[in-house]
Amino acid sequence: MIAVMQPGATAEDIEHVVEVLRLHNLKAQISKGEQRTVIGVIGTGFPDDLLESLEVLPGVDRVTRITRPYKLASRDFRPLDTVVTAGGQRIGGPEFVVMAGPCSVESREQLVQTATGVAASGATLLRGGAFKPRTSPYAFQGLGTDGLDLLEEGRAQTGLPIITEVMEPGQVERVAQTADVLQIGARNMQNFPLLKEIGRSDKPCMLKRGLSATIEEWLMAAEYVMHAGNPNVILCERGIRTFETATRNTLDLSAIPLIKRLSHLPIIADPSHGTGHRYLVQPMALAAAAAGADGLIIEVHPQPETALSDGPQSLTLEGFAELMATLEQVLAAVGRPLARPRASATSERLAVAAV
Amino acid sequence: MIAVMQPGATAEDIEHVVEVLRLHNLKAQISKGEQRTVIGVIGTGFPDDLLESLEVLPGVDRVTRITRPYKLASRDFRPLDTVVTAGGQRIGGPEFVVMAGPCSVESREQLVQTATGVAASGATLLRGGAFKPRTSPYAFQGLGTDGLDLLEEGRAQTGLPIITEVMEPGQVERVAQTADVLQIGARNMQNFPLLKEIGRSDKPCMLKRGLSATIEEWLMAAEYVMHAGNPNVILCERGIRTFETATRNTLDLSAIPLIKRLSHLPIIADPSHGTGHRYLVQPMALAAAAAGADGLIIEVHPQPETALSDGPQSLTLEGFAELMATLEQVLAAVGRPLARPRASATSERLAVAAV
Amino acid sequence: MIAVMQPGATAEDIEHVVEVLRLHNLKAQISKGEQRTVIGVIGTGFPDDLLESLEVLPGVDRVTRITRPYKLASRDFRPLDTVVTAGGQRIGGPEFVVMAGPCSVESREQLVQTATGVAASGATLLRGGAFKPRTSPYAFQGLGTDGLDLLEEGRAQTGLPIITEVMEPGQVERVAQTADVLQIGARNMQNFPLLKEIGRSDKPCMLKRGLSATIEEWLMAAEYVMHAGNPNVILCERGIRTFETATRNTLDLSAIPLIKRLSHLPIIADPSHGTGHRYLVQPMALAAAAAGADGLIIEVHPQPETALSDGPQSLTLEGFAELMATLEQVLAAVGRPLARPRASATSERLAVAAV
Amino acid sequence: MIAVMQPGATAEDIEHVVEVLRLHNLKAQISKGEQRTVIGVIGTGFPDDLLESLEVLPGVDRVTRITRPYKLASRDFRPLDTVVTAGGQRIGGPEFVVMAGPCSVESREQLVQTATGVAASGATLLRGGAFKPRTSPYAFQGLGTDGLDLLEEGRAQTGLPIITEVMEPGQVERVAQTADVLQIGARNMQNFPLLKEIGRSDKPCMLKRGLSATIEEWLMAAEYVMHAGNPNVILCERGIRTFETATRNTLDLSAIPLIKRLSHLPIIADPSHGTGHRYLVQPMALAAAAAGADGLIIEVHPQPETALSDGPQSLTLEGFAELMATLEQVLAAVGRPLARPRASATSERLAVAAV
Repeated sequence: MIAVMQPGATAEDIEHVVEVLRLHNLKAQISKGEQRTVIGVIGTGFPDDLLESLEVLPGVDRVTRITRPYKLASRDFRPLDTVVTAGGQRIGGPEFVVMAGPCSVESREQLVQTATGVAASGATLLRGGAFKPRTSPYAFQGLGTDGLDLLEEGRAQTGLPIITEVMEPGQVERVAQTADVLQIGARNMQNFPLLKEIGRSDKPCMLKRGLSATIEEWLMAAEYVMHAGNPNVILCERGIRTFETATRNTLDLSAIPLIKRLSHLPIIADPSHGTGHRYLVQPMALAAAAAGADGLIIEVHPQPETALSDGPQSLTLEGFAELMATLEQVLAAVGRPLARPRASATSERLAVAAV
Repeated sequence: MIAVMQPGATAEDIEHVVEVLRLHNLKAQISKGEQRTVIGVIGTGFPDDLLESLEVLPGVDRVTRITRPYKLASRDFRPLDTVVTAGGQRIGGPEFVVMAGPCSVESREQLVQTATGVAASGATLLRGGAFKPRTSPYAFQGLGTDGLDLLEEGRAQTGLPIITEVMEPGQVERVAQTADVLQIGARNMQNFPLLKEIGRSDKPCMLKRGLSATIEEWLMAAEYVMHAGNPNVILCERGIRTFETATRNTLDLSAIPLIKRLSHLPIIADPSHGTGHRYLVQPMALAAAAAGADGLIIEVHPQPETALSDGPQSLTLEGFAELMATLEQVLAAVGRPLARPRASATSERLAVAAV
Repeated sequence: MIAVMQPGATAEDIEHVVEVLRLHNLKAQISKGEQRTVIGVIGTGFPDDLLESLEVLPGVDRVTRITRPYKLASRDFRPLDTVVTAGGQRIGGPEFVVMAGPCSVESREQLVQTATGVAASGATLLRGGAFKPRTSPYAFQGLGTDGLDLLEEGRAQTGLPIITEVMEPGQVERVAQTADVLQIGARNMQNFPLLKEIGRSDKPCMLKRGLSATIEEWLMAAEYVMHAGNPNVILCERGIRTFETATRNTLDLSAIPLIKRLSHLPIIADPSHGTGHRYLVQPMALAAAAAGADGLIIEVHPQPETALSDGPQSLTLEGFAELMATLEQVLAAVGRPLARPRASATSERLAVAAV
Repeated sequence: MIAVMQPGATAEDIEHVVEVLRLHNLKAQISKGEQRTVIGVIGTGFPDDLLESLEVLPGVDRVTRITRPYKLASRDFRPLDTVVTAGGQRIGGPEFVVMAGPCSVESREQLVQTATGVAASGATLLRGGAFKPRTSPYAFQGLGTDGLDLLEEGRAQTGLPIITEVMEPGQVERVAQTADVLQIGARNMQNFPLLKEIGRSDKPCMLKRGLSATIEEWLMAAEYVMHAGNPNVILCERGIRTFETATRNTLDLSAIPLIKRLSHLPIIADPSHGTGHRYLVQPMALAAAAAGADGLIIEVHPQPETALSDGPQSLTLEGFAELMATLEQVLAAVGRPLARPRASATSERLAVAAV
């Protein structure tokens, strides 16, 4: 951290800065220029607000941070890519994964039909919400634990590992019994008690980017989970809030190559929430693959017009099959194979299910 | 809700829309214009995603909602202002309230010094964080229940009711034992399990606007609390996230007169988080009062440069005293008195504290 | 347009709305529901602010527009894709175009080296700025007409048509003598006198999206050019301003398939300005191609670290060659050929240049 | 400027940075820490993109600027407040100015009625648009020079100086013949040819903040005008574009005290465009005054529902009178008098008008 003094700063002002640093057990390296004095801060364990604390001292013009605040999530800390394994499926390796399924689990018929449909088209994980965060208290809030049971049936029939959302710390244990990947929703990206609790779980998690989260805040949220003990974090870009209302969110695909540079964690894209319109899902899914994503999460529903949530952005089973066909060609162009469900995992699951 | 068909929509397309509405137990009112057909949706209990569901049907060009999605929070529903009573203090009535105190409770000395200082300058509630949401897992996370105990001491010595944050559903019961007002932080504005739990509490709450929440989403979050049974919701504008980085957030003061028009709930402003810089707090506090706010929440610290959090935006005790003096004059100009702590409440508390 | 009255609106309020419509030569279609009256507005040529004018009338709750404000730019108006021809090159047809070259024309050597380099790698147009809009008055402002002369040399040597920016109405005539495509910069997207003047030109133009322009405002800006007589408008997504500062802008690739649905105009992407970082250019260029763009505009500089502007986001000639190789494969995956410079055009130009 | 090297940066990487600085005639001050080397850049006249140029060099982790890019507009450069005199009226001194009038000049009757009305209520300047930037080419584009003539009539009758917008460089000379203050609209804040031309004029100008302009970009735009020779720049906060659509823009009142700290230029607020709704104008006008603005610009129309532009945000003459009454009290609370039109100026003008 570097504090730049104002042109007219006095020796007393400079001494004041040094004194404040001393209070925090930090040392000052003073460099006097022709016009201004610059004070470098030396030491470890900077307080969270040190920058702002210095900025308000008399004679200080501006303070700038010169290192990034995340450590465990940083590529400096771990140069090689993290590969997360969930239900026997590798995420973040060379193979590109596709998580697909309905927004909400609505019924056995709906879930099983979707699960077998997406599996047939080559999906590698099954998504589906049992606990649903909804803007309105009057909207369908999900089937809860019954939804978790139905997801288990879907897994038994298809062999696909499950990803499903967990909304509060008290739910983590129960959801982790069912889920292969715990999903942290965009609105919960900075729900710190939830992040800590998932950090204590042994299940991998997928951390969606918050609606207005910077890349740095997103990595700091991953740091919370990792710091609490869980290194298996998958990031998911799902669109940010901007002034543009023609799309539900603005899918920030540049986050993909940027995260690849800053962090070793896998990153996937969610073009369904990222756009909010079915006709935009395929183009943006292909774009995410071309930009270097490790995978996709896609909402699919057998009859989107009757869906209890997110129907307008859900692909039909036919639409999903069509997407997968083109996706494989785009992936080939950038040198990546599409992940295939592990046969052994499938048989194993089916065997278990048959018991 | 109104669905506008494309110029070339067929009779079949129109019938399809009618059919989907029927599935949701809704009726269609069809109005054929020269160029386009417009279908009005009639009935009650529209599904949350109805708009988007219709928008993707063949032949539909655009769907628009004509009523607002919140009910209990709406001024249509309750034309008169809601006045919340907390620890004997009225919020939302003619008197303007000022909640003041440190960002985090750090020690007995710090808390008591701040509490007596702000009380002496005319504050009407004492704020202070015991559980702290922090961007970094390495930052000070608050004193927890020890902090709550210190807040009670502050109340005992000053008679000021307490407002403090609650971060997760499992904490609500404990925090409500101490707090006169439960604070819901900006990052938790759409933490739906927390909103529901606070909705079941008998303590008033203050709901901060989310970093990227629209006015409508904010009122829908209030609706969650009210729908669960708690009508005593105070709204707090604390700045939204925009492209501008010169301030910590952009304090959207126009939200104050806008909320006054749309809702009956009290609304206060937080110029400390709204700006992030001490030298901006007083001008924006006065501006909020002039714009019609029902109160303020202000961070005050006896020695901001040593604060464990938010030092740069905290006023000193002297700065707070100065603000209060000018504030009273601005309030007089717009015809509002500054609230005064209820003598009886104070004596009563002091009597209890003296036991 | 539809005006929804408040539940308590009186007959007088309704009559007032009808009266205001009459003042604008519009008719009202009144539809009384159980709770509310809805007034449809019938007629043509709605005033620009009609919506807002109605919204403030007594008893009116909300007004919504049901048609889009652009006509000539709309796909409803012209269902087939517009193909713009510039310097013998087709833009918006099946072939994917790549415009490449330096941010600023700096010298004969720099321009010619870049032009021949990008031509060798398969670029289809040559870009280069002679008049430069710069945030700082102290920054390099471009070579002006000398830069235009150098661009003509570049074209003579390579056969590539030229795209270059025009900044004010008085420059249009001169720039159009040199340019094959007139570029309208992001900061000038709503420079209406400039749009009108370019609308009177017979040269095609490329209209960059403004930093904070909605899709609708962007198409309205195109409408200005088309309405003044010039149908040859190419749109260019170059990133929007959001809260995220890790990238120079946020490249909104969803604008590509969205524009394809709303309009018949060609659309290309600018991953150089869209990201601001060289290492993000290739991934985002490939993503744009996968999302359905009609082309790209890319900054290339032989020695980016000495560039007088935009060095950090410029590809080297080697980096550009590498991008082109992968791009061709991604395009093949989505069924599009890369445009090839027309041999005849090239020879013709070279012949002219040789005279 | 300071370049922070990566932990693993080599001696060669460091030498490369030094070499690039040398190319720009800048010196490097190298400071080796335990983990990282930091390179300070010494010299004057940094190239505009130096920061970004360094950031892409091998081994460089991050580059940060430590001084602000504007000079003439900075309070460091000129510690005392600039007071602009326009038509005999001082702007930026202790007196608070109010510019009022219609959005567009529509007719003699409308202009004269508004001018005499606002003058009677205490306005200090007359605003009115003759050349109008409109989002749609189909909307009313202003009366042009006829509008300027009508403004002169308004001035003759009331003695109020005139502020009116100029949209392109070629118009500056003509508009300056009429106007006392040249208005630069938000969409033209970075229309650099226009800024330069106004910089060569001897008339003061008012520079509106761009829809998505940072405080720094805004001051850089002022720098353009000042650098070209015109020191009489008034800034005008008129709302920025954010995700919130309930208001036309988000009026960023914190810009007022922030500009006062960073710059010596006067700053006023435009609550009409800042909110877009008549019922929000008075609260936000009072708030701007309380926040320390030097004045206001307000849209007033005798019959807003028939206005050709911006009717919904225009105050009636009665509404304006009411605002002025309360405004004076709020100003008194913060120790500022409301400016009064100079009697001599008025008589002089009236005398001229009577000839």
